[in-house]
Amino acid sequence: MIKLIEGGVCAAKGYKASGVHCGIRKSQSKKDLSLIVSEVKANAAAVYTTNLVKGAPLLVTKQHLADGKAQAILCNSGNANTCNANGIEVAEEMSAMLASAMNLSGNDVVIASTGVIGQPLDLAPIRAGIPMLVDTLSPDGCDAAAEGIMTTDTIKKEVAVSFELDGKTCHIGGIAKGSGMIHPNMATMLVFITSDVAISSELLQKAISADIANTFNMVSVDGDTSTNDMLVIMANGLAGNAEITTEDERYKTFMQALGTVTVGLCRMIAGDGEGATKLLECKVSGAKDLATAKTVAKSVITSSLLKAAMFGADANWGRVLCAIGYSGADVDVTKIDVRFRSPAGEILVCKNGSGVAFSEEDAKQILLEHDIEILVGLNDGAAESCAWGCDLTYDYVKINGDYRT
Amino acid sequence: MIKLIEGGVCAAKGYKASGVHCGIRKSQSKKDLSLIVSEVKANAAAVYTTNLVKGAPLLVTKQHLADGKAQAILCNSGNANTCNANGIEVAEEMSAMLASAMNLSGNDVVIASTGVIGQPLDLAPIRAGIPMLVDTLSPDGCDAAAEGIMTTDTIKKEVAVSFELDGKTCHIGGIAKGSGMIHPNMATMLVFITSDVAISSELLQKAISADIANTFNMVSVDGDTSTNDMLVIMANGLAGNAEITTEDERYKTFMQALGTVTVGLCRMIAGDGEGATKLLECKVSGAKDLATAKTVAKSVITSSLLKAAMFGADANWGRVLCAIGYSGADVDVTKIDVRFRSPAGEILVCKNGSGVAFSEEDAKQILLEHDIEILVGLNDGAAESCAWGCDLTYDYVKINGDYRT
Repeated sequence: MIKLIEGGVCAAKGYKASGVHCGIRKSQSKKDLSLIVSEVKANAAAVYTTNLVKGAPLLVTKQHLADGKAQAILCNSGNANTCNANGIEVAEEMSAMLASAMNLSGNDVVIASTGVIGQPLDLAPIRAGIPMLVDTLSPDGCDAAAEGIMTTDTIKKEVAVSFELDGKTCHIGGIAKGSGMIHPNMATMLVFITSDVAISSELLQKAISADIANTFNMVSVDGDTSTNDMLVIMANGLAGNAEITTEDERYKTFMQALGTVTVGLCRMIAGDGEGATKLLECKVSGAKDLATAKTVAKSVITSSLLKAAMFGADANWGRVLCAIGYSGADVDVTKIDVRFRSPAGEILVCKNGSGVAFSEEDAKQILLEHDIEILVGLNDGAAESCAWGCDLTYDYVKINGDYRT
Repeated sequence: MIKLIEGGVCAAKGYKASGVHCGIRKSQSKKDLSLIVSEVKANAAAVYTTNLVKGAPLLVTKQHLADGKAQAILCNSGNANTCNANGIEVAEEMSAMLASAMNLSGNDVVIASTGVIGQPLDLAPIRAGIPMLVDTLSPDGCDAAAEGIMTTDTIKKEVAVSFELDGKTCHIGGIAKGSGMIHPNMATMLVFITSDVAISSELLQKAISADIANTFNMVSVDGDTSTNDMLVIMANGLAGNAEITTEDERYKTFMQALGTVTVGLCRMIAGDGEGATKLLECKVSGAKDLATAKTVAKSVITSSLLKAAMFGADANWGRVLCAIGYSGADVDVTKIDVRFRSPAGEILVCKNGSGVAFSEEDAKQILLEHDIEILVGLNDGAAESCAWGCDLTYDYVKINGDYRT
């Protein structure tokens, strides 16, 4: 049994976290530097953005994780340290400063940055912030760390679960930041996950690579794949289970628990997309294969026109059909059914690719809710998939019309 | 020499046009039915959307153009006649009604519809409108026809040119409608082009298929490829030139004149994108091949984040780099230069993939203009391309939040 619990990245045994305002951001009230530390060296794995333009922290982290080990994650918000001539040096120096302050090997430090691209990252506030971070490390520090990595996010994103392996209570917890430039491709936005499960680095890598294909890679806020997307997971083995080294039943349990955390974070990221007033979930069923289901779900959730219609609670299902039609998936458009569902009810709006009579008033009631499901039946097989997104609003334009000032 | 002239689709010899309000739209002040007629049967060619969901009018038109001939184009706005169980019958009936009223063969009628998807198209207003259309046909009717095909467009889109072939004065003119669901893929939005040049149907098809690859297919307003995209061209031969039947110098002149019309319409469509306050042109140079140049230009012009930044006149060039990086094009990101240019000046903001110091005030002045060029130098070859788009604004959200009511 997988139980949702509190604690985020500090839910698992042996982890502490902290977050401070060090001065990268002007606003004193917004934390901008976060730290997550395991009391022992942990097995670690990561996935990175496929954008050819990559933030310097990703290049440094990739090198540090080559041995499958990590002990600390240091992340700043307010500046992505991307497209800067001195980016690598700056990321390495962040790593060295933390290693020195905590008596760790620099090679065991994960470095991450998020924020504006192409402005030099000043090391001075980080140098000043690291002692504060170390001093305030706490098993209750997850909230502060989650806040420190936020950019335009309006809510902190934390999920944690407990479950059993070999009679031992195990934990997985994570934090994430959205909320614009979100359209992961073989990678994800910033997500940090910790666990006390004993699992080999190889299987840990396999687990997150498999998981993100159905979770973070199925999220889109605005179609823009970030330069700094990264998911890092640490598993320190302190739960005491026998190390997972093959894809046995215990691995499946681990995957299920991991999926609970990642889907929870996906929903939070999508629902808190820049300017969003609604969480959209497109659930595709009846596809002839998984690839088709995923392509269709992702295309629907990415359509600017559908997103704007959902903002207006307008049951304009033609835009769902349109987005399926240009998705590139090979579907029979004359077999497609479309329904809208929310806590207020469910309504059929399209059957076999053509409109059906429906009550606009009922549809409006359904679409005025916050959590909206767009149910697409392809009636062509048994594969299914889900993608997460949000509506397109005035505030998205406002936030991004002048992001840098 | 190619001269820009007035007259749109009536600029060429032997064409008349008209547009009326017949009642598909509620607003009396908005024309919703248009007609373009050649006094003699013309060679004709067309390209259509690649969206798997296709409007019924496209299927009917494709059949009618199988013989490479057409004499009239009948187009309504306010309803796309798409995803309707009786769509084909309705489109065929529109064609039959016009053929009967004008004593034409139904097979020589092009049918087009644009507007909301998935609502049955009522034939009654069209039946009432056709006699009015026929009665008001005029060599000065282009304005009315251009207005009748508009949806959320705020300006009529007409371009015409004159040029010489075999010592004869020839003409090409076109009208188009945007302005949302614009992301053509091997096809285009609604565009009707007329010419008096004598040219075979085969070469006419070849000409527009080649032209759109560099014109309409390089336009994006919102990333949504419409179900009803269509470009139709008629050439009635009344200019008196010897028929063009091979890709000779005269064909090249024809292509150049055609390109002047289509690029003009592209700029109008992009600049009048839904809610747009700016026309964006991304000009990519120094690419190793044409495909790379096009992929990069289209990716930049499609980025929601860049579009929002342009609305805010914010020189956030990191979003240009980001969009190049995720475009899928194989580029060396450490060689990329980025400049912004407008009538107010030009400014270098990124050199070799990293930021350079620049005056934010100067950049602001440049970006406050209406016509903005985003100049991307890949420094990796000699190929170049241009894509057209617009900014993302509050009004885009407003227009599409409740399009159907």
